Amino acid sequence: MLTLFYAPRTCALASHIALEEAGADFALKRIDFGAAEQTKPDYLAINPKARVPALQTPRGVITETPAILAFIAQSFPQAGLAPLDDAFAFAQVQSFAAYLCSTVHVAHAHRMRGYRWADDPEAIAAMQKKVPQSVGACFDLIERRMFRGPWAMGNAYTIADPYLFTIAQWLEADGVDVNLFPRVLDHRTRMQERPAVRKALADELAL
Amino acid sequence: MLTLFYAPRTCALASHIALEEAGADFALKRIDFGAAEQTKPDYLAINPKARVPALQTPRGVITETPAILAFIAQSFPQAGLAPLDDAFAFAQVQSFAAYLCSTVHVAHAHRMRGYRWADDPEAIAAMQKKVPQSVGACFDLIERRMFRGPWAMGNAYTIADPYLFTIAQWLEADGVDVNLFPRVLDHRTRMQERPAVRKALADELAL
Repeated sequence: MLTLFYAPRTCALASHIALEEAGADFALKRIDFGAAEQTKPDYLAINPKARVPALQTPRGVITETPAILAFIAQSFPQAGLAPLDDAFAFAQVQSFAAYLCSTVHVAHAHRMRGYRWADDPEAIAAMQKKVPQSVGACFDLIERRMFRGPWAMGNAYTIADPYLFTIAQWLEADGVDVNLFPRVLDHRTRMQERPAVRKALADELAL
Repeated sequence: MLTLFYAPRTCALASHIALEEAGADFALKRIDFGAAEQTKPDYLAINPKARVPALQTPRGVITETPAILAFIAQSFPQAGLAPLDDAFAFAQVQSFAAYLCSTVHVAHAHRMRGYRWADDPEAIAAMQKKVPQSVGACFDLIERRMFRGPWAMGNAYTIADPYLFTIAQWLEADGVDVNLFPRVLDHRTRMQERPAVRKALADELAL
């Protein structure tokens, strides 16, 4: 049995959708960010990083979205969520996930989590101010160079798709003009129509 | 034939060491950051992100250190650089790499690359000021919770080791007191004694 620790509107949605797409048997455990539950001893015992997502498995906990996504793809090979028998093609999927994790999500995080990297309130405000530009530059690269279509990696739907969809959910709040990125926008619209995505979005707000 | 595009003293060292450990046949191509070569059309055709590392393969280019490291482990299975037949254990290695990529390297980058996230010089200075604390907090977690010993993931040397070693090279310049992290320091010392590491360090400065 798998348990996904998540909070609504976080990057945990990517792992949640991937579990749905894989047809996995899993439980959801909502962490209450409003009560700072992620910083309490019970949750730190699960994930000492005080973040979501965390995927509890019979053998232990996995953290970090790219690692969880690849684990889901490898654990449910029949779902075909990654090219598991082709090291080069798998690396392309991993590269897309790593970019979302280390560059796009990080750019976005400077809007709400600037305190991670500076203490001065004016510096934090300066970081917020640049988010539309930095996140916009990331999506410009995705739109022009990385996104292959119809899915992120081309003809096959992979773990890169729920991850891209998850971060693309934040574009408007990040102050980015989504109309600059028609392929990303079309992808987001088509993702919203998938049963796994509809179920994940409904379930994460229901608990 | 593989070609690794790199610059000295960057995170490309992790992929470089992994290629040496794997016994791979590869060429090195130094990108001159002093001349901003990474922003010129020739290099942007290889990696539009204008960063290193990039690994050119007969099938195309791979970017992002975690993706390159997993590709090397999968392409040279006889080197035993990752637990390839165990999705959970592989996920733990990937989780370590994702943390180094998206949290530790990012914390470090606020010392020299603050312009990515703010324009105001005072904000950039405020980011630099917090680097010893933010990078120190990352290594505290690595020292106490993540590092298993004798290698990063336990008894087996994996792709997590050159990556940890590479980022641990920057601790002093980041203003972190390395004596707070004796296990990381011991790992760094043992890494420096490995023939693959000595060769990679010598070769990256020789070109």
